[in-house]
Amino acid sequence: MLPKLILTDIDGVWTDGGMYYDQTGNEWKKFNTSDSAGVLFAKKLNIPVGIITGEDTEIVKKRAKKLKINFLFMGVSDKVKIAHQIIEKLNISFEEVAYIGDDINDFFLLKKVGFSASPQNAPDYIKNIVDFVTKKKGGEGAFREFVEHILYMNKISIENLINKNYNVRK
Amino acid sequence: MLPKLILTDIDGVWTDGGMYYDQTGNEWKKFNTSDSAGVLFAKKLNIPVGIITGEDTEIVKKRAKKLKINFLFMGVSDKVKIAHQIIEKLNISFEEVAYIGDDINDFFLLKKVGFSASPQNAPDYIKNIVDFVTKKKGGEGAFREFVEHILYMNKISIENLINKNYNVRK
Amino acid sequence: MLPKLILTDIDGVWTDGGMYYDQTGNEWKKFNTSDSAGVLFAKKLNIPVGIITGEDTEIVKKRAKKLKINFLFMGVSDKVKIAHQIIEKLNISFEEVAYIGDDINDFFLLKKVGFSASPQNAPDYIKNIVDFVTKKKGGEGAFREFVEHILYMNKISIENLINKNYNVRK
Amino acid sequence: MLPKLILTDIDGVWTDGGMYYDQTGNEWKKFNTSDSAGVLFAKKLNIPVGIITGEDTEIVKKRAKKLKINFLFMGVSDKVKIAHQIIEKLNISFEEVAYIGDDINDFFLLKKVGFSASPQNAPDYIKNIVDFVTKKKGGEGAFREFVEHILYMNKISIENLINKNYNVRK
Repeated sequence: MLPKLILTDIDGVWTDGGMYYDQTGNEWKKFNTSDSAGVLFAKKLNIPVGIITGEDTEIVKKRAKKLKINFLFMGVSDKVKIAHQIIEKLNISFEEVAYIGDDINDFFLLKKVGFSASPQNAPDYIKNIVDFVTKKKGGEGAFREFVEHILYMNKISIENLINKNYNVRK
Repeated sequence: MLPKLILTDIDGVWTDGGMYYDQTGNEWKKFNTSDSAGVLFAKKLNIPVGIITGEDTEIVKKRAKKLKINFLFMGVSDKVKIAHQIIEKLNISFEEVAYIGDDINDFFLLKKVGFSASPQNAPDYIKNIVDFVTKKKGGEGAFREFVEHILYMNKISIENLINKNYNVRK
Repeated sequence: MLPKLILTDIDGVWTDGGMYYDQTGNEWKKFNTSDSAGVLFAKKLNIPVGIITGEDTEIVKKRAKKLKINFLFMGVSDKVKIAHQIIEKLNISFEEVAYIGDDINDFFLLKKVGFSASPQNAPDYIKNIVDFVTKKKGGEGAFREFVEHILYMNKISIENLINKNYNVRK
Repeated sequence: MLPKLILTDIDGVWTDGGMYYDQTGNEWKKFNTSDSAGVLFAKKLNIPVGIITGEDTEIVKKRAKKLKINFLFMGVSDKVKIAHQIIEKLNISFEEVAYIGDDINDFFLLKKVGFSASPQNAPDYIKNIVDFVTKKKGGEGAFREFVEHILYMNKISIENLINKNYNVRK
C-alpha cells in the first residue's frame, strides 16, 4: 500500500551530516540533486512530502522551496508532535506515513510510522528499529532510494514514471 | 569511428551531484580539474564539446568559459530537442554524437545518440541503456574517462596527444 | 570508570583535516552533526568537554558555542600545558582525562591521559600509542564513536540516554 | 640520499582535484592539514619546498604563505623550465630534486627529476613513469606520504623529528 505522506529528516539524510562553517558566521549544507527525483516520484503519485528538521536555516528553506516541498518544519525538538499536526490536517493515521531519519531525535517518530527507514550510516540503535536501511549513505541519494523502495514495494515501475517533458534536475 | 560531437550533462557527471547552499542564497558546485583533460583531448582532435544541463547557473557558465566549451545550453527540459538543434547546425546525425548523462532527464538523449555513457553512480535504469559505464563516479573524472574511452576505441594514444607546451590544468 | 573530563582535538578529528580556502582570505571547515551527540552524551553524564586546537579561527569558536563546549583553547602549541591548566582547575588528574587527537602535536598529550584515542585515518605512529582507534575517520563521527566507546566500557546504555524532549541535531 | 629540493604540484596532489565555484565568481580549494607535516619534516631537514602549479589563485598563495613555502610559481605552462630556474638558483641538479605531480602537465618534469611520485588517483600513464605511487589520493595527505617515504628511504625516524614545542597543525 502506498503511504499517504512521506516525511523526511534533513541532516544526515539529505546530507552526509556535514555542516560547513566559515569565518563570518555563514553556514553551508551539501545536498544531492539525485534526491530531487525522489520528490518528483512522490509528486507524480500525489503523495505530499514533508521535511521535519531540528535545525533552523535559510539553507533548508531554499532547498524546500526549489523542490516545492509540501510541509516544512524547522527547529523542531519534538518530531512526533509536529508529525501529529500534519496527519491531523491530512486526516490520515501514523500507519499511513513513511519516514526516514538517522539519529536520536528521529527515534520516536521512526517507531511510530507505518514505514520507517534510515540511511546506511545511521547508528546501530537507529538501524535496529527501522523497517528499511538504504544502501546509500545520507547525502548520496538515500532519500531517493527510500522513495524508489516504496515504489518497488508497490510494484510501480520507475521507467513508466519517467516523462521526457519533465526537467527533474533540481 | 570518432564522434563528430561530444555532449555532456553537468550535475552528477562533472560533479558528484552535490549542490552546496549557504544562508544567503548563494550556491556552489564542485568540479574536478581532471575532467579538463577530457575537453583538451577533444579539442586536439577538433571535436566540439557541448554542455546540456537542466540547471541554470553562473557556476556552470564560468566553468564552460574557462574550458572554452563550444556549446552551452542551460535550464534545458528537453535535451533531445536541444541536441537536435546542435546537430542540425553542425550538419551531422545523432549517430555521430557521443553523450554522457546520469539521470532521468538524460534518458531519451542517451537512447538516441551513437555512443552513450553514464558514470558508475547512475541509477540502474540509466546504466542499463548506455553503451559504456565509467569506472569513476561523477565528479571524480567520469567525463575524462568517457573521452579517454573514445580515444581508446579509436586506437588514439593519449601519450601522443600530450604536448609539453600546453597547460592542461584548468 | 568514567573520565572526569573529555578533551578533543578539532582538525582531523571533528573534520577530515580539510581546510577550504577561497579567493578572498575566508576559510571553511566541515563539521559533522553526528559528533554533536557525543557532546550531548557527555553532558547527560555531567562530564565537561574541552577543545584544544592548534588553529585559531572563528569557525571553531562558533561550533564550540553552538554545542556549549565547556573549555575552548585555540592557537595552542603545547597541548599538555593547556590540559594541565584545565585539570588543575577541575582538581583532577591526567589519569581521569580522555583525549582524542590525530597528529604530531597530539602525541605527548595522548601519551599522558588515562584514556587516549585517535580516528582511523591517523598516522601509524599515533595509532600505535593510543588505547583506542575509532572505526570512523575524522569528520565522519569519530568523536561520537569515541564517547560512545567510553559509555560502552562503562556499561551505560545509549538507548537509556535518549530523551525525546531533547533536540540533539546540532 | 636526501633530495636537496622538494617540488610539488597542487591540484590533484594537495587537493582531490576539486574546484569549487559559486554564483559570484569566487572559487575554493580544499587542502588537508595533514600535508602541513610534510612541509614541516622538510623544514626540519633544511630541504626547501617549492610549489609549481598551472593555476594562478589567491587560494594557493595563502596556503603557501601559511606553510612558509620557499618557492611558489603559479600559472605555469612549462614546469620543467621553472624547475630549471630554481635548481640553477640553488646550484643543484635535477637528479637532486624530488617531485610529486598527478597529470599531463607534470609528465615531463616527473621524467626529469631524481625522485618522482604521484598520488594513487593519477592516470595510469602518469603512474607508469614515476618512482613512487602514494597509497593516499590527492587531498588525503599524499604530499605528506611522499615526504615520509623520502624519510623512510633515508632511514630517518619520524618519531625523532617530533618536537613537542612545535605546533604542526596548519
